[in-house]
Amino acid sequence: MLGKYAHLTQSLAGLRAAGTNPFTVAFDEILSPTSARLNGQTVVLLGTNNYLGLTFDESCIETAVSALQTEGTGTTGSRIANGTYSAHVALEKQVASFLGRQDAMVFTTGYQANLGIMAALAGRDDHLLLDADSHASIYDGSRLSEAQVTRFRHNDPDDLYRRLKFLADKPGDKLIVVEGIYSMLGDVAPLAEFAAVKRETGAYLLVDEAHSLGVLGENGRGLQEVAGVEADVDFVVGTFSKSLGSIGGFCASDMPGFEVLRVASRAYMFTASMPPSIAASVTQAFKVMAAKPELRRTLMRNADALYQGLSKAGFRLGPTPSPIVSVRLTSPELAVAFWNKLLARGLYVNLALPPATPARESLLRTSVSAAHSEADIRFAVDAITAVGEELGIVGAAVVA
Amino acid sequence: MLGKYAHLTQSLAGLRAAGTNPFTVAFDEILSPTSARLNGQTVVLLGTNNYLGLTFDESCIETAVSALQTEGTGTTGSRIANGTYSAHVALEKQVASFLGRQDAMVFTTGYQANLGIMAALAGRDDHLLLDADSHASIYDGSRLSEAQVTRFRHNDPDDLYRRLKFLADKPGDKLIVVEGIYSMLGDVAPLAEFAAVKRETGAYLLVDEAHSLGVLGENGRGLQEVAGVEADVDFVVGTFSKSLGSIGGFCASDMPGFEVLRVASRAYMFTASMPPSIAASVTQAFKVMAAKPELRRTLMRNADALYQGLSKAGFRLGPTPSPIVSVRLTSPELAVAFWNKLLARGLYVNLALPPATPARESLLRTSVSAAHSEADIRFAVDAITAVGEELGIVGAAVVA
Repeated sequence: MLGKYAHLTQSLAGLRAAGTNPFTVAFDEILSPTSARLNGQTVVLLGTNNYLGLTFDESCIETAVSALQTEGTGTTGSRIANGTYSAHVALEKQVASFLGRQDAMVFTTGYQANLGIMAALAGRDDHLLLDADSHASIYDGSRLSEAQVTRFRHNDPDDLYRRLKFLADKPGDKLIVVEGIYSMLGDVAPLAEFAAVKRETGAYLLVDEAHSLGVLGENGRGLQEVAGVEADVDFVVGTFSKSLGSIGGFCASDMPGFEVLRVASRAYMFTASMPPSIAASVTQAFKVMAAKPELRRTLMRNADALYQGLSKAGFRLGPTPSPIVSVRLTSPELAVAFWNKLLARGLYVNLALPPATPARESLLRTSVSAAHSEADIRFAVDAITAVGEELGIVGAAVVA
Repeated sequence: MLGKYAHLTQSLAGLRAAGTNPFTVAFDEILSPTSARLNGQTVVLLGTNNYLGLTFDESCIETAVSALQTEGTGTTGSRIANGTYSAHVALEKQVASFLGRQDAMVFTTGYQANLGIMAALAGRDDHLLLDADSHASIYDGSRLSEAQVTRFRHNDPDDLYRRLKFLADKPGDKLIVVEGIYSMLGDVAPLAEFAAVKRETGAYLLVDEAHSLGVLGENGRGLQEVAGVEADVDFVVGTFSKSLGSIGGFCASDMPGFEVLRVASRAYMFTASMPPSIAASVTQAFKVMAAKPELRRTLMRNADALYQGLSKAGFRLGPTPSPIVSVRLTSPELAVAFWNKLLARGLYVNLALPPATPARESLLRTSVSAAHSEADIRFAVDAITAVGEELGIVGAAVVA
């Protein structure tokens, strides 16, 4: 049954032979949002999506503890049966209020939010228009839907426009799906242009702000806020497992009748709801996020420092500074060696290899947190630069 | 975009007009595994899947609290990146050891366990053979896979055999997927017969023990243990959101090379891992489940008492006593009225309406917990019988 994965099994054996397997890292102990013990060594965490560092926020932990003690460890039921507690209702109100939307539905994971919303929104006669670099959960959601799927070139509103024009005479609704910040290279969608295409073609627009909620925008409402197009975004999807430091996902909307999705979305109905401790801690995390805009400023200062430091050292990076900074390398072997050498120096980053990457690049993917100190960022820039020089990727050897 | 759900929106309006909407119940407060406050009234919970009542187990809550305080509110990363902590590794060892298997993989939800395993196991040339009454997560998993899907008649090994014979000359692996206890009527798969078909045809066998783990079997290993066919079961899938009182799912197996699924299963890779507090409390729940076999005996005594009581009263039920006892009614309208009258008497049960039910029946679905007292069960039998008489479904009126 597993014979079809022989090539993958072999790749894994190769990774193990090259050092620590980057895909089976198991931390001994988590010390803070930005440090952990791994194989007995203390490492700086520079690949976590823990953008605001809220996983150790005391008020979030206290709220979760209190909910555990009063409401128990789980709901053992679906939201449409016995799995809706006051904590779930409060969280949905919090999401809607934070985003300035009429309604919000909360899902047990962010992955299920995309699956549940896309499959329910787009029926057999409808069309999904997906950015080619969409996250796996968007592709899986489109597969679960019965809709026709059209991919357009990554971040290319002109290509989207052409494809929508081509579909103009076809029946059914058209739903454009884009992300705020893309997870592999940290690049940002040209959302104002996408919104203009949406208005001109009469399509609907869904924006997945997974990596941008709490990260972008004066108030943390994501790329839609920065781009000034909130009125054009019909559905905002996001996750609680990045800036909010927990687990779960949501969809918020002003669309009349949105509530019907509660009895139409399979990934919402046919799964147990999130434990009340999760709902409570996420609600609290929203409050912290709203009360501490300085976290976003620190995050962006750290992101800029890392991006500029690595850029100055000569690395090829993503197109813009963002909390996701990826070093582009020329081969998987080089990336694996680089990753292992960084770990030996006490720096943990993510490794992203083809085919999971855009243009089949090999990436050292880093992500920055507001909880990183300036010293952490300097340490990271120095470690990455030193290994880059050692491997002849940047520095004198390259210039010579 | 939501126009396609006009009929559903109308049905919901009808439900609201008939009393409380059974699909949007939001408890004010949870008082124990078997009682809650709803609209200011205290109700007995007889529809939760909280089979062992572990949601309020003190040791599970304490373990979760401790993990929250030491490891934070979430991992903010995938299992294949920064999302594996020692708590996840410990839980996987616990699952494997409890089931006597070589390996186990843990997923963030049970829904994602079925999606992630089925889509990864069954490739384009393979065949999935699904019981017609399979849970939505099994159907969604089959949709995400590229495999050919064949449905066989519910709990019918002869029909399965015929269909496998028909596929005998086709290339690819054949994977049979059945459940231990079916969630709608509480009926049990004829697993020894399915295992015989599997052996004779060379197919693989996956059993989803979502409702039977910790419920059936001398040691709580589910229907596979009762049927004595553990050696024939290639993949055991289950959930942590029922008998274990939390959230998450797993797949356990002895298949060599099973580990490769960690880099092949999309619903495992492309989602944040469960928070460490969840992993810790589930590990503890397994220990409690193993240490307290009396919970299973109490559960079964309660299940028998409810089944016999309702059967004696004259209700049409599922085929066998089980922790899921469903009252079969002749119309959705009658079921909605029945459900509301039970709630008015302080009894919460689940309502299941077509098309989500086998044979499009309307069901009052109840589920029993080891935490129910004998008085709770008597109260439930009395309340259901009284409403059944009031509505002319059972009792003198029917006999006359």
